[in-house]
Amino acid sequence: MAKSIGIIGGTGPEGKGLAARFAMAGFEVIIGSRSAERGAEAAKEVEAAGVKKVRGGANAEAAAKGDIVIITLPYEGIHETLQPLESAIGEKVVVSTVAPLAFSPGRVGLLPTQRGSAAEDIQLLLPLAQVVAAFQNLAARKLMDLAKPLEGDVIVCSDHPTGVREVIDLAAMIPDIRGVNGGALYNSHYVEGITALLVSVNRIHRVEAAIRVVGV
Amino acid sequence: MAKSIGIIGGTGPEGKGLAARFAMAGFEVIIGSRSAERGAEAAKEVEAAGVKKVRGGANAEAAAKGDIVIITLPYEGIHETLQPLESAIGEKVVVSTVAPLAFSPGRVGLLPTQRGSAAEDIQLLLPLAQVVAAFQNLAARKLMDLAKPLEGDVIVCSDHPTGVREVIDLAAMIPDIRGVNGGALYNSHYVEGITALLVSVNRIHRVEAAIRVVGV
Repeated sequence: MAKSIGIIGGTGPEGKGLAARFAMAGFEVIIGSRSAERGAEAAKEVEAAGVKKVRGGANAEAAAKGDIVIITLPYEGIHETLQPLESAIGEKVVVSTVAPLAFSPGRVGLLPTQRGSAAEDIQLLLPLAQVVAAFQNLAARKLMDLAKPLEGDVIVCSDHPTGVREVIDLAAMIPDIRGVNGGALYNSHYVEGITALLVSVNRIHRVEAAIRVVGV
Repeated sequence: MAKSIGIIGGTGPEGKGLAARFAMAGFEVIIGSRSAERGAEAAKEVEAAGVKKVRGGANAEAAAKGDIVIITLPYEGIHETLQPLESAIGEKVVVSTVAPLAFSPGRVGLLPTQRGSAAEDIQLLLPLAQVVAAFQNLAARKLMDLAKPLEGDVIVCSDHPTGVREVIDLAAMIPDIRGVNGGALYNSHYVEGITALLVSVNRIHRVEAAIRVVGV
């Protein structure tokens, strides 16, 4: 069972929010950033919200020390950031939370990717890793609102069965959250699309929505 | 308020299931088919399940007589079937339930479309109509299982505000079902992708799943 989690590019709302939730669940969490100082600042923000066992550092430290590595980079940053981390990450389970959103007036699209989804591109960059797409669709702002229960399912897509099981277990460590096996990594394209759809839904309804799979 | 619904290509599980649910809700429903006889047979099947006010006919009759027109054609059939119906449909609200699924071994993809989604292609074929994408993600087999309540949200995408309101009202006529405004017709691409994702989820979990938007 994984005991530590490293978050690559973890200084945004998604990274800090997941750091807080997983630290509350008992994991040791390292928030990584391009600058170790910014990682440490983000960790302090999470601690200030009342969570212990979070520290910050460089992305390389998060990659090396996490039993599981979570990627919360913007899509545009994955090549530059992940290529130097390939050997530190090795065969670890790597969770892609990335949705390659393209904002334009009146429309939220998906950026063109090399393989069809951000998660598949991360697998291409880290060929030995067990890349698992998950956690794209939890409302980032709600992740940091620690007093309130979260809602929504985490759809888990990967070509690595062990990774799928580990990430379903990981999702279950957050109260009220459930991981649902969504099949092959190919399907991460659809899940990243749901993120784009939810941006529209959030704007129209002035909410922070998530999705749930019913009937499973 | 619409009183009648015409279903184009309505002899499959989705068409018959929606026919049954809307007839139960008090609408007069015409199940259209390429052959009027097959339409009539489908209507008899729905009546045999205990539902009145359903009849069958040719697609042209369903297009002409329905206040709202629902398309349950396979994607491959939209051009051939809809082009001759353009003037009969005119400016009506047209509901696209179509997901352009592409089945290949180990993968459920989406077929390439002209505009990005089946619903956008239908808008291209019927430029005067108020095309609304909806109802792609309700489990077709559960639609016909009339004794059981359905579950799931109907995400409604359109560039026609009146159409959005009418289809959200239409969804609300089915007990336990809710329509959620999902924004522009452009977003139907993401909703059609959810259909592909749910096929995988259904196979993995041996269920008939649907999705719900939580937090709205």
